[in-house]
Amino acid sequence: MKAVQTIEVVHTISDLRARVSAFRRSSEKPVGFVPTMGFLHEGHASLIRQARERCGLVVLSIFVNPLQFGPNEDFERYPRDAERDLQVAEAAGADIVFMPDVAEMYPRQIRTTVSVTGVSERLCGASRPGHFDGVATVVSKLFHMVQPDQAFFGLKDAQQVAVIQQMVNDLNFPVEIVPCPILREADGLALSSRNVYLSDEERKQALVLSQSLKKAENFVQSNPNFAAHELTQLVQNHIVTAPLAQIDYVEVLEYPTLVPFESSYLSDLTSIIVAVAVKFGNTRLIDNIILPIGK
Amino acid sequence: MKAVQTIEVVHTISDLRARVSAFRRSSEKPVGFVPTMGFLHEGHASLIRQARERCGLVVLSIFVNPLQFGPNEDFERYPRDAERDLQVAEAAGADIVFMPDVAEMYPRQIRTTVSVTGVSERLCGASRPGHFDGVATVVSKLFHMVQPDQAFFGLKDAQQVAVIQQMVNDLNFPVEIVPCPILREADGLALSSRNVYLSDEERKQALVLSQSLKKAENFVQSNPNFAAHELTQLVQNHIVTAPLAQIDYVEVLEYPTLVPFESSYLSDLTSIIVAVAVKFGNTRLIDNIILPIGK
Repeated sequence: MKAVQTIEVVHTISDLRARVSAFRRSSEKPVGFVPTMGFLHEGHASLIRQARERCGLVVLSIFVNPLQFGPNEDFERYPRDAERDLQVAEAAGADIVFMPDVAEMYPRQIRTTVSVTGVSERLCGASRPGHFDGVATVVSKLFHMVQPDQAFFGLKDAQQVAVIQQMVNDLNFPVEIVPCPILREADGLALSSRNVYLSDEERKQALVLSQSLKKAENFVQSNPNFAAHELTQLVQNHIVTAPLAQIDYVEVLEYPTLVPFESSYLSDLTSIIVAVAVKFGNTRLIDNIILPIGK
Repeated sequence: MKAVQTIEVVHTISDLRARVSAFRRSSEKPVGFVPTMGFLHEGHASLIRQARERCGLVVLSIFVNPLQFGPNEDFERYPRDAERDLQVAEAAGADIVFMPDVAEMYPRQIRTTVSVTGVSERLCGASRPGHFDGVATVVSKLFHMVQPDQAFFGLKDAQQVAVIQQMVNDLNFPVEIVPCPILREADGLALSSRNVYLSDEERKQALVLSQSLKKAENFVQSNPNFAAHELTQLVQNHIVTAPLAQIDYVEVLEYPTLVPFESSYLSDLTSIIVAVAVKFGNTRLIDNIILPIGK
């Protein structure tokens, strides 16, 4: 822990590079990077703390990336609060906050796309076409700007972690991806910047997500020969007890490959993911649980 | 020029990275990179010499990348001569030659693709679908392995240079792209590893490529208000004087944007490219000339 800290805010790529280069010249310690879309909550803070523990320099980026939002999604109304973000970032131990504007990130029409097939097609990839191309492309850009040794991603977006890990492996990015556990409210709701959209009633009913995943966990523990469809059914049945819930998907996949889970593979397999996306009004929430299974 | 030099050959990514890191720790000088598919000729040597002049460490890669060959193209029969390549590389001043095998570059099925639209669709992009995706993807991989400050590409593949420059700009690779002029035989034939495929008669007739581009240059100089179709026609008319020549394309485009050239834009424009691809038997040759025009 640092006793005194002054967080540094940079807005341009060249200032960011100069700052990271200066650190590289003065230290052999690793550079850690936490890419975010801002409106930071305790989940982001936990990523920053993890980076702080492992790295000599911690760079946080805050950029709401238009490329990963569909035409009818919430890019415009995505919540923003730069001042509070800086307080959270500083308290958690970030050294540098990179806050570029859209013109800095996309000075002209971008013609290059990084696409990851396989892991990106199911789940949110099916519901949000182009979303993971947008994620992979902006993360490539950010990795080239920051040139970190380690990058920290929350498992709340487990599919995003899988897509980024696949991209890093395939393209030989010199970056270690560090997946970090989901943080939850005391009552189980997974932390998300989008939770602020929820009305009181929606917030209450949204508990069915974490509850249904807990039920899935219990079911797997007591039924080692479970079938995927039983698990899906169990989760769906619980979610629909919330009258405001509109299910986008409930899926049981192998993890981290994100291919459909077949119980016949059980002997080779070590983890599955139960992943859900549910809309409450206009707010789309996701949650998941990764369960060790097999042998 | 170094008086004594021992070129170092590495086959694995980890050896390559260790070697480049050791240099970085010992020197502030830039790292230069020359990616090739081997069967080196004087054109490659000129890239290496250019890198030698500007950089403290010169890395050459030799890898015939299956990803950028179509199913009916010459991947299998692409000429290879590792021993001679090392002599050429050493004589020209390379420090490290990276020669990975296919399993080192693609240890498992690759699921990530880097695509560049716009500059990659015409010319060879139209004749060789998927080719530039393969180029952009392997160059991304190589850039992440070598992490060079400067990378040297020959303008013989002018479209490749344009695609890589676009990718570097769009994805913020921390690499300067250095385009280098085409080298030619005394009689004008552009140097190419594929020239060895040509029979004596094909070799003789292949001179129509460089001759037709010379004619285009003269025409532009003496007809400042030329139209694109006049130039195309002139080049085609000369190429077809070679009975063995089968034209793949003759195009006049703006450079480096590679959009169709319209003479009405002349006032804004500073360069055009006249680019040709012609088959002689099974051998496909390309050539081009970049002409400053306008004001």
